[in-house]
Formats: sequence, C-alpha cells, structure tokens
Amino acid sequence: MLKIALVGVGTVGAAVADILRENKSVITARAGKEIRVVKGIVKNPNRKRDGVDFPLSADYKEATDDPQIDAVVELMGGVEHAYEVVKAALKNKKAVVTANKALLAYRRYELEELANGVPFMYEASVAGGIPIVRALRDGLGANHIESIRGVINGTCNYMLTRMFEKRVSFDRALKEAQELGYAEADPTFDVGGFDAAHKLLILASLAYGIDAKPEDMLIEGIGHLTDEDIAFAEEFGYTIKSLAIAKKRGDKVSLRVHPSFVSRKDMIAKVDGVMNGVSMIGDMSGETFYYGAGAGGRATASSAVADLIAIARGETSPMLGFRRANERQLSVARKDEIESKYYIRVLVEDVAGVLAQTAAILASRDISIETVLQRKKRVKKEWANLLLSTHKAREVDLIAALKEIGALAFVKSPPVMLRIES
Amino acid sequence: MLKIALVGVGTVGAAVADILRENKSVITARAGKEIRVVKGIVKNPNRKRDGVDFPLSADYKEATDDPQIDAVVELMGGVEHAYEVVKAALKNKKAVVTANKALLAYRRYELEELANGVPFMYEASVAGGIPIVRALRDGLGANHIESIRGVINGTCNYMLTRMFEKRVSFDRALKEAQELGYAEADPTFDVGGFDAAHKLLILASLAYGIDAKPEDMLIEGIGHLTDEDIAFAEEFGYTIKSLAIAKKRGDKVSLRVHPSFVSRKDMIAKVDGVMNGVSMIGDMSGETFYYGAGAGGRATASSAVADLIAIARGETSPMLGFRRANERQLSVARKDEIESKYYIRVLVEDVAGVLAQTAAILASRDISIETVLQRKKRVKKEWANLLLSTHKAREVDLIAALKEIGALAFVKSPPVMLRIES
Repeated sequence: MLKIALVGVGTVGAAVADILRENKSVITARAGKEIRVVKGIVKNPNRKRDGVDFPLSADYKEATDDPQIDAVVELMGGVEHAYEVVKAALKNKKAVVTANKALLAYRRYELEELANGVPFMYEASVAGGIPIVRALRDGLGANHIESIRGVINGTCNYMLTRMFEKRVSFDRALKEAQELGYAEADPTFDVGGFDAAHKLLILASLAYGIDAKPEDMLIEGIGHLTDEDIAFAEEFGYTIKSLAIAKKRGDKVSLRVHPSFVSRKDMIAKVDGVMNGVSMIGDMSGETFYYGAGAGGRATASSAVADLIAIARGETSPMLGFRRANERQLSVARKDEIESKYYIRVLVEDVAGVLAQTAAILASRDISIETVLQRKKRVKKEWANLLLSTHKAREVDLIAALKEIGALAFVKSPPVMLRIES
Repeated sequence: MLKIALVGVGTVGAAVADILRENKSVITARAGKEIRVVKGIVKNPNRKRDGVDFPLSADYKEATDDPQIDAVVELMGGVEHAYEVVKAALKNKKAVVTANKALLAYRRYELEELANGVPFMYEASVAGGIPIVRALRDGLGANHIESIRGVINGTCNYMLTRMFEKRVSFDRALKEAQELGYAEADPTFDVGGFDAAHKLLILASLAYGIDAKPEDMLIEGIGHLTDEDIAFAEEFGYTIKSLAIAKKRGDKVSLRVHPSFVSRKDMIAKVDGVMNGVSMIGDMSGETFYYGAGAGGRATASSAVADLIAIARGETSPMLGFRRANERQLSVARKDEIESKYYIRVLVEDVAGVLAQTAAILASRDISIETVLQRKKRVKKEWANLLLSTHKAREVDLIAALKEIGALAFVKSPPVMLRIES
C-alpha cells in the first residue's frame, strides 16, 4: 500500500480523495498496490467536511514527519510555506506530488536538488487534466523542442472566446467570468498573464533545461484589447489568443506571454472557452498538440493521482526531464530579442498624409506593411483608427517606430501593438 | 551506455539511427547515458546504405544473443518472424522497443507474459509521433476511460479530406494517395480499416485490460462512400471520418472501426490530411485530445527513441498499463451490440408513397427519424436518393429495418448505412 497525506483539502484535495475511493479497483490494478489517504492537513481540523474519512490535523509535520506516510501531496498553493512543507517531506525521503505552479516557477531547481532522486511530481501544475508534463518529459525526449505555444489560462481564454463570439467588451467578459467562478475577485494574476507565465516556466525547464524566473519574461495581459482589434482579426482570418510562447533560435530561448493573432486554421486557434491547449514542435516529431480541461477539481486531481500511480510503480524519470546538464547550454533571450509579424492600431485625426507619414516611419526602420485598414470612429467622426499588419520585423525596430509615430501631430493616443504568431 | 541493435533498417530504422546521432547531446542529457546503435540486422548486409555507421548482419541472433546488447529495436513488421525475434530478445533479458502494431494486435498478452518485467515498449506502434501510449498508460491512469475515438489511419484521413475539400471521388483520392506515397499499391489494409483496428486493440488493452483480436471487432472501410453522403454531411454540420472507437457501457466495451459522421465542432473533426488525432474521455479528466503526425520515418522514430530513453532511465510502467488484473473484469461487446444515431441512403424510384412506407418500417422498429432529404439522380431522373438521419437506435433494429426497406418494390439497391457519432 502507498500511504499518502494531503496537505490542503480544498477542491483539488477533496477530489484526490474522491478519485482514490471511487476508482480504487482500477487504480490499484494499474499501480500494483492500493493508494490510500491516511491523513489530511488543514487550517481548521474541526470544521465538518463531506467525504473526509481520514484524520485531519493542523500541523504539517504530522504529514512530513510521520514514518508511516510514503508520499505527501501538496495542494495549498503559495510559495514560501509550501516550500517549507515540501522541503520537510523530501528531507524525510517522502515522495512529493504538487499542483503548485508558483512554487515551481520560483523554486524548481532548488527542489530538484533537494529531491535528489526522491520522486517529485507535478503533472497537475500545468494544464489541469492534460498529461502535458509527461508528453514533454518522456514522450518528446528525442527532440529539440523548437517551440511551445500554449493556451494555458482558462480565464483569459474564456473571456477572449466571449469577446470574439458575442462581441462583448473586456469588462463584460470579465464580469461574466467572475460570475461563473472562472475569475477571481482580483483577476490580475490570470488576466495579466502571470499564471500562464508560471506554467510556461515549468514547460521551458522540461524542454530546454532553462532556469528562468517570471521576472525574466515578457508578460502582457489582455486588458488593452478593443472591438477594433477583434474586427480586424476576424477580417483577416485570425483569432486572438493569450499565448504562452517558448521559442528556440540557436542557443537562445525566448519566453513570453501575450495576446497574439493566430491563424484560425491553427489547432491552437480551436481551443475555446475555459479549455486549454498546447502545441509543441519538435525537430523530429513535428507538431504535436494536446487539448483538455485546464482546471476544475476532478481534472486537476486526475493528474495528481496519475503521479501517485507512477510513484507506486517506482517512477524513474528525472524531475525536470534531464538526468544531467545538456552539453549545449541554452540561455534566455532578452525581452526585446523578438522577431515577429505585428498588428498596429493608431488613433489618428483623419487628415491628408496620415498613412504616408506612418508608412514612411515604418519603412525607414525596414518594417514592411502587409495590410492596411482605416476605420472612422463612430462617435468622433473626424478621428479614425488606422489598423496595420506588418511582415516579419525586429521588435526593437517596431518599438522605436511606434514611439516616432506616437509623436506625430495627428496621432491622438499612443499606438497599440499586438504580435502575429505564424 | 545503452547499446542497441536495430532489427530492420528501413525508413524508421534509419531515422532512429539519425536521431540518436543528430540529437545525441540532448538525448544523453535526458537519458543519463549515451544510447548507441551497435548493430543492425537486415536481409542483405552487403547493400550500401547511407548513414549506417554500425555493423550489419543478416542473422537476428547476432542481436538477440549478443551479450553486449542491452535493447533490441524491432522494426521489421509482420507477426510471426517478429514474434520469434522479440521472444529471443526477451529470453535473454534484453529490453524491446517495437513499432509493430500487427505483432501487438495478435500477441500482446503472450509478450507481456514473456517480458515478465523486462521493459517492452511500443510508443511508435500507434499514432506515430504522438505520445498516446504514455498518455493512456501513465497520464490518465486515475480514470475509467469512457471512450476512445481516434483518427489513426493517415491514408483514410487524407482521402476523406480530399473527398470533402475538393469533392474528388474515392477512386481519384486513392490514386492521389498512392502517388504521394500515402497508400500502398494494395490499399486494403489501410482503406479497409484493418490498420486502425490493430492500433485500437493496443489502446483498448491500455484503457480496459481487454484481450481481443481483430476478428472480434466490427471493421468497415471507407470504399462505399459517395458524393451524396458527403453533401448530406456538409449540409447538416458534419464531416465524415474513419474512426477507431472504443466505448465502455457498464462492463462491456464496444470496439470498432468504421466511417462516422462527426460534428464539425468536435476536435476530432479538425484532424485533416495525413494527420492523426485521438480523443479520450476519462470519468475524471473529461475529454483530452492528442494530435500530430501519425506516420513518417522521423516522427515514428521520435517515439521509438523516447522508449529507449525511458529504458535507459529504468522504466517501471507495466507494459500494458496494469500491474495486476482489475477486479472488475470488462469484456468485449458483441459486434451488433451498438446503439447509435444513423444516416441512411436508399436509392428509390421516385413514386408516391416511398417516404411513407420507409418511415413506417423504421417506426415499427422504434427508430425515429431526425432529418430527411430527397435528391433526384442527375442521370436517371425517375430515380432519387432518399437520405435520412435517425435519433439513437439499436443497431440490430436498424439492420432489420434496412433489410425490410431493401425488399420494397421501389428500392433499387441495398440501403447504405453510416453511424453518426455524438
């Protein structure tokens, strides 16, 4: 028998206990032994909880220091206290399973060292019920990963789907997401791209062996998107997704989260609502794509239990996918070391010479225009939105050009830019 | 170092050697040791081959009986001889990697017994570069798998995509597939559904622990599809895919391969051309979906090398996903124990009472009609195609009704039926 303690018995913790109870026979057959919850650690052990048939305690040491316990499942969230708990468990050679992406985003290499061969698993930390950690750590191990592109924040994706399908505003979409329980009262962590950044860092370690922190990344939220951007995207065969992107060029890996124009033909464009999807291109496998529920108690717990089964079987894959350092060390690209196609929105006074001057500035920086659209503002008729898409350009050049364009007399507010993934 | 022998150095075998050479540094870092091809077994060792930097022999015993060799990679195909080779390797405690779906379709449980804990891996046998075996064996281990639906034959899918997108005929689509190298000179194995059936049996073992043979399955090819079927599908929001389906109801699992109407909103409907896609619904995970290249030397070899990395790391997952028999034994449903929605095409003389009599026969068997369409034949104007879709019905009832309908005086050829997946 594999005896486990749940540290945190909220939605996911309770679902882990449910799954182990409801699917006991098939899990035992797959794992080769029963997996049983023998203890739960919670803030208030006296509160009555449904479906809890194991003893509760408020002291995490009753999990990490109890000799009968084989594995600790950390489901509290947060970085510092979770680190303390997990460290204590590893010190006592107990296997660890976690769904805690923030912990991994900040401390995964320290944890790898502490684990030192004791199983440390975290399938549930990225993309809920999709076994994406295994796909990258095991299934694509023969490949250099050329790129990862993920829709891995359900809140953003729900909102963008609503903004596209029903043309609701950002504020309305956010309110809906909050009412449905998809967004927190303070939505910054999801809508600002930080949640996706944490998850991407985990995938980037598995793909590239790269130690980076959220601070090293370009992270942009979806708060500045407007009706015009969505109409432009639709007109030219795109949708807009908040993408977490890792791209390898030579020995540099660019890591970023931002809203992106994506061709509607792309599999990643077909991920709608709260679902998650990840596309990964390997140099040998070509593109593979993974789709499923990115959140929800049962889907997330399904992944945590898969980790427990692996531990019961005697898991031997290295925690972060590498048994030793790769000879060819990769490093993180600077935030502005990006080349992309771009979409630009400029609010202008509708006078002669607007397009000519804008185009001249772009041309002077070697940025060539692909399409142009000008739309009069409905309310203020003497103003218009100038919408452009460019061919591939260097981001440093684009930013410089936008600064120049923003300073032109007829430009009414700072130009807005979005990247086009192709 | 993990020393391997390739038994079979064709497209996939050569690609395995290429990948191990080209991606040596990253593979060594992930596996913890170098993986090196030290021998190849081929029919004619004297033929000159590009990129072969290891000794060749015609005698498989030089692979299976050589004490320096740790793992044998079987890439010959076929059942009997491959079984002999693999058996010899396992007897000498050598790990085995294979891409041979026919071998597994017929002999997987014997092989599991022979292996008896020696690693036996076959990621490359289903869906090429998509790590679908791992997803099912490891990632979804906490779940009862409610259904598997796979587009896992690239030849059929290429042809169906062409028939839909360009309205080319079956014969034309087949000729194109043959010219592009996607179909064999004798296409029966692919187009008849047998290749997909072999792959489905492997997935069904991982999901359900079920020992079945191709003979136990309902297998239908795509050869009887016509323009009318495709037009009807388009009109009502469907596409047609050759699906490999496993569905659990109670303790029975239905296993089948046949062309199916699929809603265009379904992820599986978005798998076009030679690509593969598999949707799996777990009782806890919900739907997860996997997409990628289902064939091609490098994609298939990418999966075989992933297996070698796992072996180098000390793989401990059970070959067919179960460490011991599940208490709740499942069994294969009879071929006609199907409930589905159906599409029916009947060629009729265009006279009064045709629809009334057809509808009466269906009603007498409790089959209710969802939509009806009648299309005059262009060439023979006094004939028409009567196209129907039904609500959910029992297949035994439907088959009986079609037999009765086929016997009506105004019916000009045996009615054709396709299942609608919903």
